[in-house]
Amino acid sequence: MVGAGQLARMTHQAAIALGQSLRILAESLDDGAALVAADVVVGDYRSLADLRGFAAGCDVVTFDHEHVPGAHLEALASDGVVVRPGADALAYAQDKAVMRRRLTSLGVPCPEWAPVASAEDLAAFGVRVGWPLVLKAARGGYDGKGVWVVSSVDDAADQLRSDTPLIAEAHVPIARELAAVVARSPYGQGAAWPVVETVQQDGICVEVLAPAPGLDPERADEAQALALRIAEALGVVGVLAVELFETHSGELLVNELAMRPHNSGHWTIEGARTSQFEQHLRAVLDYPLGTTTPTAPVTVMANLLGGPDDVKPASIDERVHHCMARWPDVKIHLYGKGFRPGRKVGHVTALGTDLAEVRGRAQAAAAYLMNGEPA
Amino acid sequence: MVGAGQLARMTHQAAIALGQSLRILAESLDDGAALVAADVVVGDYRSLADLRGFAAGCDVVTFDHEHVPGAHLEALASDGVVVRPGADALAYAQDKAVMRRRLTSLGVPCPEWAPVASAEDLAAFGVRVGWPLVLKAARGGYDGKGVWVVSSVDDAADQLRSDTPLIAEAHVPIARELAAVVARSPYGQGAAWPVVETVQQDGICVEVLAPAPGLDPERADEAQALALRIAEALGVVGVLAVELFETHSGELLVNELAMRPHNSGHWTIEGARTSQFEQHLRAVLDYPLGTTTPTAPVTVMANLLGGPDDVKPASIDERVHHCMARWPDVKIHLYGKGFRPGRKVGHVTALGTDLAEVRGRAQAAAAYLMNGEPA
Repeated sequence: MVGAGQLARMTHQAAIALGQSLRILAESLDDGAALVAADVVVGDYRSLADLRGFAAGCDVVTFDHEHVPGAHLEALASDGVVVRPGADALAYAQDKAVMRRRLTSLGVPCPEWAPVASAEDLAAFGVRVGWPLVLKAARGGYDGKGVWVVSSVDDAADQLRSDTPLIAEAHVPIARELAAVVARSPYGQGAAWPVVETVQQDGICVEVLAPAPGLDPERADEAQALALRIAEALGVVGVLAVELFETHSGELLVNELAMRPHNSGHWTIEGARTSQFEQHLRAVLDYPLGTTTPTAPVTVMANLLGGPDDVKPASIDERVHHCMARWPDVKIHLYGKGFRPGRKVGHVTALGTDLAEVRGRAQAAAAYLMNGEPA
Repeated sequence: MVGAGQLARMTHQAAIALGQSLRILAESLDDGAALVAADVVVGDYRSLADLRGFAAGCDVVTFDHEHVPGAHLEALASDGVVVRPGADALAYAQDKAVMRRRLTSLGVPCPEWAPVASAEDLAAFGVRVGWPLVLKAARGGYDGKGVWVVSSVDDAADQLRSDTPLIAEAHVPIARELAAVVARSPYGQGAAWPVVETVQQDGICVEVLAPAPGLDPERADEAQALALRIAEALGVVGVLAVELFETHSGELLVNELAMRPHNSGHWTIEGARTSQFEQHLRAVLDYPLGTTTPTAPVTVMANLLGGPDDVKPASIDERVHHCMARWPDVKIHLYGKGFRPGRKVGHVTALGTDLAEVRGRAQAAAAYLMNGEPA
């Protein structure tokens, strides 16, 4: 697995059960996955030489992020390395203009959008869809970075001056965000987990509610079918997370795609019979996919986002201690990262039957771990 | 963790979630846990120098087996190393005579027993309890090794000639074997999982049924209370597995003790809110213990015991493939070990509501993985 963040760390946990030895390409031995895996190669995912050295002897190469240059992926494939998902599929997760163009051609509902190469392009798009609108860096954004809501061409002056390729999208009023997480094997087998609601704050996912509360079953089926159709059409192998907007009229629009285990699927570690990490391994290793049945009526995952420096008690270890005493059934996942305000350093998962109760438990545990105060 | 077998391997999985870095003392880099952990020290657990080198910098030292000499454990403790469970507690898991003497003094029901230093001792015990009886090596036995059913003093000639300290026990007619697995923290907090039935073949556990089918609830409570009482009285820190005989009259007798995660608790990985591996870590790290609530009405764990060499398909990878296709909800755990007939190389876990159905699924998956034929 290229990349050694929390996704690789949790994939390694799943690999252990399957008897697999996950080799990890890390930027540093301090990366979350490098701290816990036996087979770690330190190198740069932007270097083809490093990628080639890393891939030698691997049965399959997969990813915990989408940042490996497409040309390198193609070179690896030419070398005979099995790369899953492949360069053709990953291109859609790497470039939002490429993704929007393809999804539009597939008839997949998306917000109205246009590539933006100039102030004139932006002005024309503004006339068409109205202001404010959403400006996005076509490549490299995540967790709200590379996304700007702008009210005029002047508002976008900095972005327009930069070299970053941009797209603009209509600022759709939404009721909430959903995610349909699926997996697809090379053989074409597909599997979908229940559609979830992702609760966002400042462009960062803070909570995932599984299944999405009150979602019409037909709408949920539609979202799963849409995600499986995208996986098939784009030739995805592995996990595909389709981030969706649900509009006030109940329409579903595709926001983003991720071709790897995704934050919106962390709840599956305890909340589904097969976790997204095990499923990703099954898919990229060309094993049959596992059952996605939920293990509880309601699962809530809350991200641990690094809080202020003056938290009391100051030691995370002490906060873990108190959290475990107060909520002995909440599952804690720490990623081995240093704490910085707003940084995802872990998550907690609570399971049960009553959404308000389960959600309250997850929120309180997460808030206590990060801020020393229950929410 | 001293020892790098499957127990350390699965403990490492649990440690990852807790943000802990498990250092492992392995005999070889090919040991199951050494294949997957980042921090592996190769050394001999019988060497105090190796143990001291290993323990330097560890917050706590714990074990995946009971074979570290007690004097070494005491020396480590004198050095200031935190050893959990400690030498005093482990002595009861290391020597069956010491264990039987202590349990008898606590009034814990055990089979009748006696230390055996000579043919005369054995003959006298045979007169007292009748033949056949069970002869056991006081130290070092496991999985049926070091246990012999003998019908006369002559039958025991080999054992009596050896230097191995022996004990003899009455050969109690039993209805079945049970296990009460509990955990205890240094603070004295205790937690018990549901009592399970362990199905044995030739002295090796082949299946665990959780909870023990048809066990009278009062009897189950009694078994849990007994195990917690033993943990307290012996000063155990970590997981304690109490192997029990259930007699035809419903009486419970203690067979063996293990002070570490135990085969009879593997079902807890998926079958309980807190697994025995996470719980062992919580206990030895002095964290509060986690909830032991089952996640399904019935969980069955079946061990994977290496089968004959001529299994078709010959590749375990191909058998895993077919197994996943046929039973997409069975959880497979492989230990990274080479296959030898009778060797525990992994386990599978099935969950559900109907015992016969769940058990059939677990047995069939395990049989297929090992023998290429569903049971």
